[in-house]
Amino acid sequence: MANWFGDEVLERSRELGPLCVGIDPHAGLLKSWGRGDDITGLEFFAFRMLEAVAGTAVAIKPQVAFFERFGAAGFHALERLIVEAREANVLIIADAKRGDIGSTNDGYADAWLHPASPLAADALTVSPYLGLDAMSSLIESAATYNKGLFVVVASSNPEGRPIQTARVDSGERVEDFLLRSIAERNEASPGALGHVGAVIGATRDRSEFPLEEMNGPFLVPGVGAQGATPSDVGRLFERCQKGSVLVNASRSISDAGPERRAIADAAQRLRDDLSSALL
Amino acid sequence: MANWFGDEVLERSRELGPLCVGIDPHAGLLKSWGRGDDITGLEFFAFRMLEAVAGTAVAIKPQVAFFERFGAAGFHALERLIVEAREANVLIIADAKRGDIGSTNDGYADAWLHPASPLAADALTVSPYLGLDAMSSLIESAATYNKGLFVVVASSNPEGRPIQTARVDSGERVEDFLLRSIAERNEASPGALGHVGAVIGATRDRSEFPLEEMNGPFLVPGVGAQGATPSDVGRLFERCQKGSVLVNASRSISDAGPERRAIADAAQRLRDDLSSALL
Repeated sequence: MANWFGDEVLERSRELGPLCVGIDPHAGLLKSWGRGDDITGLEFFAFRMLEAVAGTAVAIKPQVAFFERFGAAGFHALERLIVEAREANVLIIADAKRGDIGSTNDGYADAWLHPASPLAADALTVSPYLGLDAMSSLIESAATYNKGLFVVVASSNPEGRPIQTARVDSGERVEDFLLRSIAERNEASPGALGHVGAVIGATRDRSEFPLEEMNGPFLVPGVGAQGATPSDVGRLFERCQKGSVLVNASRSISDAGPERRAIADAAQRLRDDLSSALL
Repeated sequence: MANWFGDEVLERSRELGPLCVGIDPHAGLLKSWGRGDDITGLEFFAFRMLEAVAGTAVAIKPQVAFFERFGAAGFHALERLIVEAREANVLIIADAKRGDIGSTNDGYADAWLHPASPLAADALTVSPYLGLDAMSSLIESAATYNKGLFVVVASSNPEGRPIQTARVDSGERVEDFLLRSIAERNEASPGALGHVGAVIGATRDRSEFPLEEMNGPFLVPGVGAQGATPSDVGRLFERCQKGSVLVNASRSISDAGPERRAIADAAQRLRDDLSSALL
């Protein structure tokens, strides 16, 4: 990807629609597809999902935990999936929720963002408990390599809300404090949209900090199995730039089963619904 | 490890002392050891550190980011390090700061805690931004397999403090809210110490929630390069059970350079200082 990440998201999602497809090869899913819970089953699932949604989805979002459970062999499968997705011109958002301090974040940047890494994705999800300001090296590396970050701000699950709505010293909620910090990071963006994005659950209410002022892309889980609809997403982000929202769907697509055509149909239907609601 | 994790920590650290050695093979460190920034250099560093501190340190704490930057090959090296550490009877705390929701945490439990996994450690660090209650499967898996978790509660770096000291609805600080939640999880512990621990930076002040009431092990970074002393740690945890605190040191030991004897001496000196301050 040779362009600034924010612009790449805008351009691609305005053309294709706002769909990101989660690749979640957990044991139950592989079983429901009639596959073994092993590397062969995992690869069948991941590659089949990719080929079925390429041309419809802007991005795939492999959930790294489900690869990691097979250790090095699982990461090797993820490396191959990344190569295939790049060939298929589908963006890769590594859902790894990494985040640490100082030089450790350099390690994560080298792993997930450096173009020479076998795990080089187009964007990485990060978890901010150790502070967004501790992630400067990740943010800078992402800018250098035309990559993106998605900071988990307001998760789709209820258990995260006590921390995410806690109030920092200024009286602001943690989620608003993070959105404001992200907006500051995106101020110097050379593109129409910054490269630091946020994960905001579709099941959430609007934050106090205006989402449109964050000036970065959004990655939105929670549609389908978790209860939110495309219209909910449309309302939540109605003031944001068209094309700045990527909606992730996993089960609502993989539940179509292993047939390529069925997966592609499910993805296209959802993509069309999302495009109507968002674009 | 056949015993309850909390008891294993107490027993081993009362016998050996409270030292945990961080294995942080970042580029700068490998260079300072005269090694290449590649898998060969990483393995030289990691195995040399392990053999030099075995018998002195209760645990090693590989920082997973520095292995991850080599992709699958880095994880393969980590798998080998885990095998060697087990052979050497040294506990392995995988410093991965994982954490997500629902079935994704099952994936992390399968990766890091399930005894059949090639990455099976004795304990895993987790990052709580998506909620401790979302981590039930990790907490339960850890109990089932006699493993431990260390929840990042109060990190040693200043950038994490705005979130960690934000106030939840009850008025409590996030760090105290987490310590209380961990204490609840440890109430049903079958051992003298629970299996859910906390990461508390040695550079921190005492939390409002009394640390001794958490009834779990502590993993304490921040001594040495980050400015805290063994006496600081002794004061911070003075009311906690003897043997419940593991103090992590990385640079202050690896800075001894690649000679086995020099590393071992540095580890023993620090271990003795920590034992005087804490046991």
